[in-house]
Amino acid sequence: MRFKIINNAEEKTYALVMEPGDEAISSLQAFCESEALTAARFTAIGAFRSAQLGYFDWEKKDYEKTPVDEQVEVLSLVGDVALHEGRPKIHAHVVLGKRDGSACGGHLLHGIVRPTLEVLLVESPGYLKRKLDPESGLPLIDIGA
Amino acid sequence: MRFKIINNAEEKTYALVMEPGDEAISSLQAFCESEALTAARFTAIGAFRSAQLGYFDWEKKDYEKTPVDEQVEVLSLVGDVALHEGRPKIHAHVVLGKRDGSACGGHLLHGIVRPTLEVLLVESPGYLKRKLDPESGLPLIDIGA
Amino acid sequence: MRFKIINNAEEKTYALVMEPGDEAISSLQAFCESEALTAARFTAIGAFRSAQLGYFDWEKKDYEKTPVDEQVEVLSLVGDVALHEGRPKIHAHVVLGKRDGSACGGHLLHGIVRPTLEVLLVESPGYLKRKLDPESGLPLIDIGA
Repeated sequence: MRFKIINNAEEKTYALVMEPGDEAISSLQAFCESEALTAARFTAIGAFRSAQLGYFDWEKKDYEKTPVDEQVEVLSLVGDVALHEGRPKIHAHVVLGKRDGSACGGHLLHGIVRPTLEVLLVESPGYLKRKLDPESGLPLIDIGA
Repeated sequence: MRFKIINNAEEKTYALVMEPGDEAISSLQAFCESEALTAARFTAIGAFRSAQLGYFDWEKKDYEKTPVDEQVEVLSLVGDVALHEGRPKIHAHVVLGKRDGSACGGHLLHGIVRPTLEVLLVESPGYLKRKLDPESGLPLIDIGA
Repeated sequence: MRFKIINNAEEKTYALVMEPGDEAISSLQAFCESEALTAARFTAIGAFRSAQLGYFDWEKKDYEKTPVDEQVEVLSLVGDVALHEGRPKIHAHVVLGKRDGSACGGHLLHGIVRPTLEVLLVESPGYLKRKLDPESGLPLIDIGA
């Protein structure tokens, strides 16, 4: 993955471009840590050769996992970055498109890029923090934190 | 719903976080009115415990409604804010992900949040106005208005 | 298609509104050329009366095309603009919603608007360039170019 700043103002805009074999979530996570982001939003399009989707099962309080073992278009990858236990943490949901045009999607657990993923990420000067939510067991953004 | 300004410049960036039981459209609508927005865009991810989708039937000139009565991931909520009859008005389309990874979506009529909806909204200093379109019967953004 | 600048800063925000019969990709492409964009991102919602979706077949190195011959909601149109051979080039992926709420999508080859498409596009002061990727045969964004 390579990146470039295309606007250097109060909010910084980064273009991040991934390459075949890059894993989207870990690559984004590593970028957010190296740039020490405290609050950001992003959108992306591209394609994966495989992915794993999560669906949060409200009864079990855990993610049910769905593998996607085929080449798919990344129709939208929408997400945010907030601090969790002092480190930036990625949260991203994806919609994928299959050969027949059908769409599927979920919480993106991982996705292997092929041939590209084009991410436009905007870093804000403020900060957002996640805090463990006792009801769901998930680290949710807590505006008061 | 709670919110925080994470960039206070010509364009203001708000992070809005909803809680279990919040209805997404009315919460966003109330926020836009209280902040007196004149033009904005937003993206969001999270989850709903139920929702109602609209599909605009071009022959009937009315929304056909599809209920979604199950916990779903909000894979993308994309929308804008423009003035209509002097008040800001939300327009939002959603893609939802079910347990099996399948995706559905439509014009978001309402969605009950569980456990969270993370909205990143950017307010612009300019304005946009909607005007009733005689052909469709819908209040469309009129750039000349 | 008509447009308006709603924020005139280092990054410019444009609202573009399409009308019945406008073709989304060629209209966006013409706008990017007339405004001489060098890097931009956009999101849009609205509806099409018909569209054509592409799925990149990794074996054939070509797009498989799926026609959509019905009125559909544009649930999300996410894309970017980068230079290719000295001209701005649009890249956009779409998720569409049908009457029954089901979702489909792909690389947007073309889409005929009805009644509206509301695009929020942010132009960055930097630039992005595409370069023919020998492996895929596609013009991918090359951060080093």
